[in-house]
Amino acid sequence: MIDDKYLKITKTMLDGVEPIRKTGLDVVECRDWYARLRMPLKGNSNHIGIMYAGSLFTLGETAGGAVIPVAFDYNKYFAIVKDAKIRFKRPAMSDITMEVNMSKEEADRIVNGVEEKEKCDFVLELELKDINNDVVAVMSGTWQARKIPPGMKLPWTD
Amino acid sequence: MIDDKYLKITKTMLDGVEPIRKTGLDVVECRDWYARLRMPLKGNSNHIGIMYAGSLFTLGETAGGAVIPVAFDYNKYFAIVKDAKIRFKRPAMSDITMEVNMSKEEADRIVNGVEEKEKCDFVLELELKDINNDVVAVMSGTWQARKIPPGMKLPWTD
Repeated sequence: MIDDKYLKITKTMLDGVEPIRKTGLDVVECRDWYARLRMPLKGNSNHIGIMYAGSLFTLGETAGGAVIPVAFDYNKYFAIVKDAKIRFKRPAMSDITMEVNMSKEEADRIVNGVEEKEKCDFVLELELKDINNDVVAVMSGTWQARKIPPGMKLPWTD
Repeated sequence: MIDDKYLKITKTMLDGVEPIRKTGLDVVECRDWYARLRMPLKGNSNHIGIMYAGSLFTLGETAGGAVIPVAFDYNKYFAIVKDAKIRFKRPAMSDITMEVNMSKEEADRIVNGVEEKEKCDFVLELELKDINNDVVAVMSGTWQARKIPPGMKLPWTD
């Protein structure tokens, strides 16, 4: 389930980025410190019915955006992705889900880093799983948290 | 320009994978041993007008498919991506292009490997560039070439 307080922000974040919106990616669970996202197979498969590698990458990449509202003040901080690596382990033949979570200690470290030095890197290790709970891909990425600059227009600040 | 002999195969390859087709990715040059692909900014930007990381990854990932027709017999061999890493170096604020090429020696190594052992890995190092020729992202991936199994239906074998 999705906590009411995250409903608008998660939808706005997803809908605000056209290439993500076109994939049909959805947030299926969302609460403090935790989110679970799902990429549908429909519309994301290659010519032999397996989920396209780029759609799997997109699912993983949204972790950095999904963790912001559940672990940070999303009106103060945002994150950009710096690098990512993904390893494809088996054909993705169903909808694929991914969990992302963050501890309060890690969020505190990041917020303190941003307040002191304007930016702070953080790493997320992600598993992308099919409906049988088998891992189809593993991804590791580095994101950088920053303060939202004054006057920066964000879809949820309208 | 695109050599006539590659026109149908490149278009069919791109159109055959729905999530790639939706990005508007295009082949802008294609000849023996070489292809250049372009991801349009339009339709692939995030909420602040920069090309979305997942669209950049998709551009890079298509290198493994694009190299097949220009360097191999595409009715005999195909490639799957095993892993990839991408590093984002600067905001991508225009259409982005990527070149991919392969030497005859490398193609021979791969074909010999597939004929001997059914599969053969190859690595591509890619630079994604904006209209000022500045590198916005670098990507490195491992693909695996395989023989097309008898009876496998491919869009261009219809």
